[in-house]
This record gives sequence, C-alpha cells and structure tokens, in this order.
Amino acid sequence: MKDEHLIEKKVSSKQIYSGGAVHLEVDDILLPDGRPAKRDVIRHVGAVGVLPLLENGDVLLVRQYRYPIAKVTQEIPAGKRDPGETPEECGKRELLEETGAKAEKLVSLGSIYPTPAYTDEEIFLFLATGLTFFETHLDEGEFVDVVRRPFDDVLKDVLDGTLRDSKTVAAVLKAAVILKK
Amino acid sequence: MKDEHLIEKKVSSKQIYSGGAVHLEVDDILLPDGRPAKRDVIRHVGAVGVLPLLENGDVLLVRQYRYPIAKVTQEIPAGKRDPGETPEECGKRELLEETGAKAEKLVSLGSIYPTPAYTDEEIFLFLATGLTFFETHLDEGEFVDVVRRPFDDVLKDVLDGTLRDSKTVAAVLKAAVILKK
Repeated sequence: MKDEHLIEKKVSSKQIYSGGAVHLEVDDILLPDGRPAKRDVIRHVGAVGVLPLLENGDVLLVRQYRYPIAKVTQEIPAGKRDPGETPEECGKRELLEETGAKAEKLVSLGSIYPTPAYTDEEIFLFLATGLTFFETHLDEGEFVDVVRRPFDDVLKDVLDGTLRDSKTVAAVLKAAVILKK
Repeated sequence: MKDEHLIEKKVSSKQIYSGGAVHLEVDDILLPDGRPAKRDVIRHVGAVGVLPLLENGDVLLVRQYRYPIAKVTQEIPAGKRDPGETPEECGKRELLEETGAKAEKLVSLGSIYPTPAYTDEEIFLFLATGLTFFETHLDEGEFVDVVRRPFDDVLKDVLDGTLRDSKTVAAVLKAAVILKK
C-alpha cells in the first residue's frame, strides 16, 4: 500500500478525561518504522457552522466570550452535533437557536478539520439563505450577541486578521468565491 | 464595560494532563449571570504554518498521517513554536526542516484560532517566496512526503473540500486573494 511509510498503528488506548466537549485519550502507537510512540487525542462529536446571508447581502455573526483565549470573538453561528443529527439538521438547529433565523436553503461549503494533529473534530460548513426570523433559544449557560454586518466588511475583517476563528475564516472565504466577491 | 454581559470569570484551575502538545486543564468559572460552570481548556504553545510558493506558481505541501482522523492529509508545512521563537523564525525553521526550502521572504497571512471553544492555540500563517533548497531535517518520529503542485490545483482542492486542514484552507484562500487568483 503506497502510504505504508506514513501510517501509524494503534496498540492501545487509555481514556484520561471525559468532559462536556473534550474527551482526552492517550494512545500507544507504532510509528511507520515500527518504533513505539504516544499520541494525545481529543475525541469530539463534531460541529457545524452556518454563515447566514440576508437578501441585501448582510450576514449574521454571533459575538461571544471564548474563555480559552479570554476574548470576545465574532463567529458564524455554530454548535456541536447532537446524536443522530445530520450536519444539515444541526446547522439549521444551531442557526435558529442562536440567531432566531430559519433557513430555506443550506448550501454546503464542505468541512474542515480544525487541528488534525490532536483532535478528530470535523466542522461542517454551510451558507444559509432564504432567512425568516423567530425567537432565539440559547442553550443553558450560553450568552451571545447577534450582529448583522455587510458581507464585504466581514470579508475585509477576515483578510486583515481581525476575525481569526478558523471555521469563520473558512466559511467567509469560501462564500466569497461562490458569491464572486 | 460593554461586554460585561458576555464575559466569564476564572475561579480556579486544575491541571488534568500534560502531554507533548496537549495540556488539559479544567477551570471552575462564573458565567456572566454569576452562576458557576466548568470549562475544559487545552493549553497549547501555538504553531506556525507556511505556504511555500515557487517562482513558476507551484506550491509545496506535506503529506502526513494524522492519527486522530486516521487519514493521510496534504497540509502546508507547519509546526509548534519553540520557546522564545517568533512566529517568523518558527515558520522558517519548520519550512526548512520539513521541505528543505529556505525562504528569502515571508509575508504574513495573519493568524487563526482553530477552535477557540476549547483551546488557546493560535496558528500564525505566512506565504513564503524566494525559495532555495537544502536538505530536510525531520523531527524524531516525523514521517512526511513533500509534494509539489500547481497553486490552482491546490485551490480547487480547498474549494471542493478535498483539502480540509483548517490552517491549509485559510492560508490557500488568503493567498488566492493576495495573488488575485
């Protein structure tokens, strides 16, 4: 097999911690040359991010405090997948919960692995259009502001490094190509 | 202060695990409304990714096995920052180690937070030009193939979701804007 010189093999796995979003295991592995090594792996259920685009070209972002970086960020609405939920169902649910918007149409923007070096998290991305508005239903303990901004301003903020959340960067830049910005 | 309704406050912090790249702590915090909660936080030293662009428009990527997702990926050359190292120094070092290329010029492509929900990792991104080639010096236990591909093919792979590593997606799409692709 052509990738045999790259592939690492699992020997055993030990669960270290299981929290709300983060499940840490440390695996004993064999490197491609047969020597032993360890891999720290964060197991994650996966997530979905949605870029909601209004008819006039504005987009919705959520402002929220990100404790690990001690900063208020602006990000596309997003959240973890519930058991059995498809990425599209999760995207529609999170969009409604966080912004009150129901989307008529979700266009796939693919998915990203935020940090495949140490987590299996995959974030599916969508562009949402045909929005109608209802009440928000934030999760327990979730505090966010919804902001509405012109797409071009958000794209400028991504390009100049003001917006740095990886799923937001990927979704905005991919949408810019689709929308021929 | 205008963000007081979003900000979470640390009460105490407990270290759970300290590995090669992943350091896990669980913090007791207070939510903006004063109620207690917990936050799982992966502390990380930070990383740098470099998109090496050759004079004819080809780019270099590294193929490597990512154990958490059990896949061989194609990613921009990248690595963790050493103590005291600037992002630019780290980028030049990792580029040389993984591909054997020395870069005359590094242009900043900003930085990304791959997953600010549970890690403080920040990845600085650069476009590297003026490349000359020497020997590679891979880290102990590191196995990668270097591949050389036309930028437009790589951009197509990012847009159609074939390439999904977040730092690679961000660097390629930002470079496409700079290079007016």
